[in-house]
Amino acid sequence: MESEQLFNRKGYYRNSYNSIASASSDEELLDGAGVVMDFHTSEDDNLLDGDATSPGSNYVMSNGGGVMSSTTHLLDFLEEPIPGVGTYDDFHTIDWVREKCKDRERHRKINAKKKESAWEFTKSLYDAWSGWLVVTLTGLASGALAGLIDIAADWLNDIKEGVCLNAMWFNHEQCCWGSNETTFAERDKCPQWKSWAGLILGQEELIWSFYMCSPDGPGSYIMNYFMYIYWALSFAFLAVLLVKVFAPYACGSGIPEIKTILSGFIIRGYLGKWTLLIKTVTLVLAVASGLSLGKEGPLVHVACCCGNIFSYLFPKYSKNEAKKREVLSAASAAGVSVAFGAPIGGVLFSLEEVSYYFPLKTLWRSFFAALVAAFVLRSINPFGNSRLVLFYVEYHTPWYLFELIPFILLGVFGGLWGAFFIKANIAWCRRRKSTRFGKYPILEVIFVAAITAVVAFPNPYTRQNTSELIKELFTDCGPLESSQLCQYRSQMNGSKAFVDASPNKPAGPGVYAAIWQLCLALIFKIIMTIFTFGLKVPAGLFIPSMAIGAIAGRIVGIAVEQLAYYHHDWLVFREWCEVGTDCITPGLYAMVGAAACLGGVTRMTVSLVVIVFELTGGLEYIVPLMAAVMTSKWVGDAFGREGIYESHIRLNGYPFLDAKEEFTHTTLAREVMRPRRSDPPLAVLTQDDLTVEELQGIINETSYNGFPVIVSKESQRLVGFALRRDITIAIENARRKQEGILLTSRVYFTQHAPTLPADSPRPLKLRSILDMSPFTVTDHTPMEIVVDIFRKLGLRQCLVTHNGRLLGIITKKDILRHMAQMANQDPDNIMFN
Amino acid sequence: MESEQLFNRKGYYRNSYNSIASASSDEELLDGAGVVMDFHTSEDDNLLDGDATSPGSNYVMSNGGGVMSSTTHLLDFLEEPIPGVGTYDDFHTIDWVREKCKDRERHRKINAKKKESAWEFTKSLYDAWSGWLVVTLTGLASGALAGLIDIAADWLNDIKEGVCLNAMWFNHEQCCWGSNETTFAERDKCPQWKSWAGLILGQEELIWSFYMCSPDGPGSYIMNYFMYIYWALSFAFLAVLLVKVFAPYACGSGIPEIKTILSGFIIRGYLGKWTLLIKTVTLVLAVASGLSLGKEGPLVHVACCCGNIFSYLFPKYSKNEAKKREVLSAASAAGVSVAFGAPIGGVLFSLEEVSYYFPLKTLWRSFFAALVAAFVLRSINPFGNSRLVLFYVEYHTPWYLFELIPFILLGVFGGLWGAFFIKANIAWCRRRKSTRFGKYPILEVIFVAAITAVVAFPNPYTRQNTSELIKELFTDCGPLESSQLCQYRSQMNGSKAFVDASPNKPAGPGVYAAIWQLCLALIFKIIMTIFTFGLKVPAGLFIPSMAIGAIAGRIVGIAVEQLAYYHHDWLVFREWCEVGTDCITPGLYAMVGAAACLGGVTRMTVSLVVIVFELTGGLEYIVPLMAAVMTSKWVGDAFGREGIYESHIRLNGYPFLDAKEEFTHTTLAREVMRPRRSDPPLAVLTQDDLTVEELQGIINETSYNGFPVIVSKESQRLVGFALRRDITIAIENARRKQEGILLTSRVYFTQHAPTLPADSPRPLKLRSILDMSPFTVTDHTPMEIVVDIFRKLGLRQCLVTHNGRLLGIITKKDILRHMAQMANQDPDNIMFN
Repeated sequence: MESEQLFNRKGYYRNSYNSIASASSDEELLDGAGVVMDFHTSEDDNLLDGDATSPGSNYVMSNGGGVMSSTTHLLDFLEEPIPGVGTYDDFHTIDWVREKCKDRERHRKINAKKKESAWEFTKSLYDAWSGWLVVTLTGLASGALAGLIDIAADWLNDIKEGVCLNAMWFNHEQCCWGSNETTFAERDKCPQWKSWAGLILGQEELIWSFYMCSPDGPGSYIMNYFMYIYWALSFAFLAVLLVKVFAPYACGSGIPEIKTILSGFIIRGYLGKWTLLIKTVTLVLAVASGLSLGKEGPLVHVACCCGNIFSYLFPKYSKNEAKKREVLSAASAAGVSVAFGAPIGGVLFSLEEVSYYFPLKTLWRSFFAALVAAFVLRSINPFGNSRLVLFYVEYHTPWYLFELIPFILLGVFGGLWGAFFIKANIAWCRRRKSTRFGKYPILEVIFVAAITAVVAFPNPYTRQNTSELIKELFTDCGPLESSQLCQYRSQMNGSKAFVDASPNKPAGPGVYAAIWQLCLALIFKIIMTIFTFGLKVPAGLFIPSMAIGAIAGRIVGIAVEQLAYYHHDWLVFREWCEVGTDCITPGLYAMVGAAACLGGVTRMTVSLVVIVFELTGGLEYIVPLMAAVMTSKWVGDAFGREGIYESHIRLNGYPFLDAKEEFTHTTLAREVMRPRRSDPPLAVLTQDDLTVEELQGIINETSYNGFPVIVSKESQRLVGFALRRDITIAIENARRKQEGILLTSRVYFTQHAPTLPADSPRPLKLRSILDMSPFTVTDHTPMEIVVDIFRKLGLRQCLVTHNGRLLGIITKKDILRHMAQMANQDPDNIMFN
Repeated sequence: MESEQLFNRKGYYRNSYNSIASASSDEELLDGAGVVMDFHTSEDDNLLDGDATSPGSNYVMSNGGGVMSSTTHLLDFLEEPIPGVGTYDDFHTIDWVREKCKDRERHRKINAKKKESAWEFTKSLYDAWSGWLVVTLTGLASGALAGLIDIAADWLNDIKEGVCLNAMWFNHEQCCWGSNETTFAERDKCPQWKSWAGLILGQEELIWSFYMCSPDGPGSYIMNYFMYIYWALSFAFLAVLLVKVFAPYACGSGIPEIKTILSGFIIRGYLGKWTLLIKTVTLVLAVASGLSLGKEGPLVHVACCCGNIFSYLFPKYSKNEAKKREVLSAASAAGVSVAFGAPIGGVLFSLEEVSYYFPLKTLWRSFFAALVAAFVLRSINPFGNSRLVLFYVEYHTPWYLFELIPFILLGVFGGLWGAFFIKANIAWCRRRKSTRFGKYPILEVIFVAAITAVVAFPNPYTRQNTSELIKELFTDCGPLESSQLCQYRSQMNGSKAFVDASPNKPAGPGVYAAIWQLCLALIFKIIMTIFTFGLKVPAGLFIPSMAIGAIAGRIVGIAVEQLAYYHHDWLVFREWCEVGTDCITPGLYAMVGAAACLGGVTRMTVSLVVIVFELTGGLEYIVPLMAAVMTSKWVGDAFGREGIYESHIRLNGYPFLDAKEEFTHTTLAREVMRPRRSDPPLAVLTQDDLTVEELQGIINETSYNGFPVIVSKESQRLVGFALRRDITIAIENARRKQEGILLTSRVYFTQHAPTLPADSPRPLKLRSILDMSPFTVTDHTPMEIVVDIFRKLGLRQCLVTHNGRLLGIITKKDILRHMAQMANQDPDNIMFN
């Protein structure tokens, strides 16, 4: 991994000297190392970073270094804060402790000032409320964007099949609202809505009036088929082109990267305004193109972009990486809230799945953001049913204990599907990265879109929008339902049929045809989803997974229903499933299956159950859901403990320390720390006998992010820790501003200058950039405790001592490498600091 | 605070030497210091501690000390683990890091063994599943107990008013099920149910057949009044007697203590089987006695007792204080789940309000426990409505934006009530503690119960069960509702009245009478609740708070409704509130008011909104609830940031480090650490030149819980940390088992014995009890970071160094004292270690 070395060593060094990270060269380095978004040209870097880099890296710290902030009263006040100290480079990890201290310092200043004047008091009030303001704005924007995306995707999706003659901008359903026939079977028959064949061929009725081109003839079919493929390819091409040219970060679901960012990693521009704009537009195109993908995951990314952009309005959040992540946690809750119409589920998703640091204050704000977003979406009412989602359902039949067996079987299926999908998708993505194939993302997207369109059109269950498919599968067969899935043979006399709502009936030919089509759709979805997730277009995983589960669940449900009908004298059915009663709800099976498959892929539990619970609105069905989801998680975990997001994080080598994974090895800190026995000794700085030249020499010769400062080489007793970036910025700053600083100037970190010979040049005091409270552990500390400290406190590095003497250093990267090594994985895939 | 000194210094010292804490003498000491449960006699200590002390303190650690466990391969294996090392004294704080390490070590052992044989594999499976098993059992038991308590309390409550002639064990409602009249107004008229007057006087109809004693006459009324008071006093007396004699820990709501226990404090017997039994019985009695208290808080305590008792079945949980607390977190979720019929709300309550350490695994298990408990309760169906709570409601009218104004006003009322209640209740409890008045708990309970009964009987809204009152207030006036609150004057002609469900109508005399009674009930409840919470009976706060809010809300709701009726041409009403439409739902106001008042008292937000959301089952009303609850929290916080539970924790001096409270001061570690400048120097042990006698001398002269071990007095470099309890146990053990250990024996903590003169006695190696990875911070570390470390890692103590030299020590108690000092509170009220 030479490129990775390059990035780590030289890359850092150069960036430090340039003082502000040059994103374009960073990313070039990253490309070689094999990151997902590896096909963008150099032109787009300006666009990409324009918004995020400038406010992020140029701000001036109010104080000469975070952790030391509260010790400033000990320092002489002549020193001005050095611009740039306390900021981070791109693709580096933040120091949570330092960020939180910075915020408390800011808070204290505002509190101290607030009694001075009415203006300062207003400012302090504004500061206190800005947290609520930013989550409100985020919620509003997320809800509005979600509504917009829903409406636009619906419209574009219908454009593939035809156009509304009255008004171009109506989708199929809206177009037919004026018409009398609105039931499912009749929806194609509305006269205002013209299929493409009808439009093109129908205009010249005189010429083409023979059978071939009649509205139901093969000519029309082929014409519609062709137009369907044409639009699908156009949308897919446009989507991938926009992503490639304008915002490479807009591809994928975004959840793995958001998890990494929330854990304290910096990816500039990932949540910027260009990413937001392009992701919103391309998400609509990608969904409309008919590819096997969903908009739910990308909606979380869109919401996080909104949160990030609004946080720039408030210095409290824009200038503090830890505080900004609180807003992002709330934003991700809002994203799930609008994606599934589940505000509580969204908060739990943010808590369980994506967030790293989740204090209670963030819980309240996440909840608030999720609610605001949900209500904005409901006001927009994109689905015309005054619900937040297309597939809101209500069941009226209870479930029976015996049904737990098929539910658990569905859980097993979900777990198997999840494990298989993760393995297959990761293998395919690795192949894409490592072979020449990955060099042509546009071709790949067009190829996959073409196959999808060609195969999908003939089957009504794959041709329709996946959300609509899920809705149809979830919905129970009522007397008014006209779907093919509900074509049961009626046993009753005509008059009785409408009295009893929907007793179990023998399946009619429509149901059998539907089952065959569903089986084909299942196989098609399984194969296409594996190849689709990872394409360079916005692509969510929730909807395809749910569709697969819903198809399987509906098939199982119908099977159980028919079994109960034909064998109602069996012991298991006898007590509660008599002829003429409605004892099996196939729609419920579809929902349980959907939850199980989604659980198998993502390994979510509580948040998933709550999301689905909010779809049904009844406590009644929590037990089946819980049983299926837990089974699916256990089955999936048996094949590999990582969910799809963790797998993608590992594939991309992000420095993500998973809070869920337990560290179970018995290693000690001294076995993990650098330097190893064979390494050169640790690069340390002494507190008062280095010159500027020697200091620069040490910095140039090594590549470490920071250096421990010790009393003297002999005693090796630790004084503090200084960051490389801070030292270089401070030296440069001193050279520019302070006179008399030469290469031979003495550098000191102590409070008072050392006594020097009379003719020596003016010494340089660097105490203000010294972290005087570095975290230390002893060499005997078990690594499980060290890992715990890193996770809970969000450290970047920790020093190792033995009997008070400095021995070495452990960084987050060392820990990740060590964990990879212990799990028999390649430790070199951990790439960032 | 002499007694507190006594406890800290002498109490600890003596306990250490007795090796196992003697709970009875501890508690005597505690009495003087003013703990809540301060009236128990010495006889009950055996009962109290019988169950909990023995398994808790006599277990043998599998390994010679927790943190060092993974370093055992460095020690010689000749040393046997010393029994008792690694356990805790009563009223002490646990070391979370050590406990978690112990658990990981146990886990590793099982994992290493599991491939040896099928039996070991089964054991490892059992171990892996025991977590699910224990939460399932806890859920089952909590649900069953909650159902039992509901049924018994209902029955006993009705006994106050009369008796069922058919079957003694039927409550009023069950008794009248056979009867035809079951509506609210007619419920007194069911012939099978006899009021006491009817029973006693009615038997001798011939003699007493004049007006005075007719069923509606004043004689019957007085007789019923008298019987009501008689039963109320009997129940209250029995409850307080049982609590006082058998289980003093059973009093109060239990939530402050559970919060403290979950944060890592040890109170032996607080969750024992006697407490469970007595709390269950006395809770029923207390609720039935008509005192202004609820069963919801105590139900959480009952569920935690179940969790604690079941955890003793599994060594994984019984032998590890940290793991046990995971079960308790799940149990508290189950408790709220059955108390309010809100499983998701229960989990969020556990997360937001009571838990300290809440890993994701606990989230899943809490959710599971809450679900199991809810389903058991539903199967028991104590309310006969197949709901989990009495006051489940469904509204059918939307709310309008303008209504947010009264909702926010209700929030302000809730916040003011909360702040007032907390101040008044704490002041009263402090007075009870500090004056002679608190010496007579039985008399106090009887006095309060008598006043409550005397005042409550004449008013129907205070006479009835508080839960029933809340249900009546929450319920909207439908055409079938016959409550006094629904006696509106009908505007319609008879035929139309039943067509439109419930339009706004002018209030009839019944409503005005009800409002006056409700106002009196409000004042009565406010006053009585202040004096009731803190009595020596099980007493929850949720139901009285909700009742106060519901009364206020209903009054406001009716007022707004009448305003809208009489002034429907006002601008605010004009658009949506015409004559004959149903635009105001007074029941919704009652619910919002209840949430606001509960929020003001407990300062819960998300969990409270979710709990109430689960009561209504509609997303529709979340915004009003959220607005009211947030307003109430902000208004309450303006008067004092602590909720009632935190206030009681502080009143009792428990060592609880609140994760919600931010530490905002700028002090450094060296300002908080001991020894202070005026103190004697820090008591330290040197690693290899102390004798047993000197060591014992140091231990006897000081009172610290542990001692840092240093290389030598000259260098002051830190080697490790040894706990006082472990040292005394180890010395005693060595004297008993190892030969040749004399007072002049050298004690060494190093790996190899020091070189000694030939005639010196055999040295004593104590490395196995040395914690070689103590947490250290530098003296310059800001206290905010130190507090953060203590909170997040759950430390007991932390050593302070300067340039590698040991300077001092900071314990959890030091931090709590310092925080109290900073907040201008009495630092001496922090009492425990």
